[in-house]
Amino acid sequence: MYLIDPRTGIEILERAECLRLLASEVVGRVAVIAGGRPVVLPVNYAMDGDDVVFRTAEGTKLDAAVRGAPVAFEIDHTDRLYRTGWSVLVSGRAEVVTEAADLERVRRLPLRPWSTHDTSNWIVIRAEEITGRRIVHIAPPEALRG
Amino acid sequence: MYLIDPRTGIEILERAECLRLLASEVVGRVAVIAGGRPVVLPVNYAMDGDDVVFRTAEGTKLDAAVRGAPVAFEIDHTDRLYRTGWSVLVSGRAEVVTEAADLERVRRLPLRPWSTHDTSNWIVIRAEEITGRRIVHIAPPEALRG
Repeated sequence: MYLIDPRTGIEILERAECLRLLASEVVGRVAVIAGGRPVVLPVNYAMDGDDVVFRTAEGTKLDAAVRGAPVAFEIDHTDRLYRTGWSVLVSGRAEVVTEAADLERVRRLPLRPWSTHDTSNWIVIRAEEITGRRIVHIAPPEALRG
Repeated sequence: MYLIDPRTGIEILERAECLRLLASEVVGRVAVIAGGRPVVLPVNYAMDGDDVVFRTAEGTKLDAAVRGAPVAFEIDHTDRLYRTGWSVLVSGRAEVVTEAADLERVRRLPLRPWSTHDTSNWIVIRAEEITGRRIVHIAPPEALRG
């Protein structure tokens, strides 16, 4: 089934498709509010059920900003050759994983930091809303840059 | 010159390098605060000097959220084969382009919407801060998912 927004020509992705896309990627972007401003940082991540899991270095700006705060997590893909694109946005609240059973489970996720810096905290984003969209009515190639 | 953060092993990119990277990409992500929560949406964009320019459809959530509000704009690139990555974050305020001279200039930018939907507003993010980082001390391949 396809849900097309008639006003924008954009396909609204169903939750199951969003979760499939989330499971297929390894790098996404965490958005937090810091000092009243949005801040976006890429992270390596893995899925734990419907939740997003990533690691942060203790004491970093990101570590402080995500603790209990409303956060967003975004992945997207654009294909410049075929002029298509999709994006998925997870909205929720971030928590530091502290329970032993939870830590044991997330430590088995296929997730390692890209930086060699000690990323000691495991953060989970409990998904409250997962939305996605795909551009289906694409512009003709001559109307596009590149 | 390389500026390496000794705590994280991450290279801090200079402003000139950030601007070079911004000029080299065509798709980025706008982050706004909507209802007290961060929201991230990919957009096609072009640079107008140090400012980010993109288009929105009038009346959309994005259109409303960016008007005069603090926004962030992010681009990144990760190379799974070579295990490297960089990201650039522009922090500033978004404005609708209304002055005739400004409109004439931005309309000449190599920027077209990816969706066929009428994206009637030109939005400019006046950059107040431009920061970037690159992962230079990369984890060994066996430590990475992939």
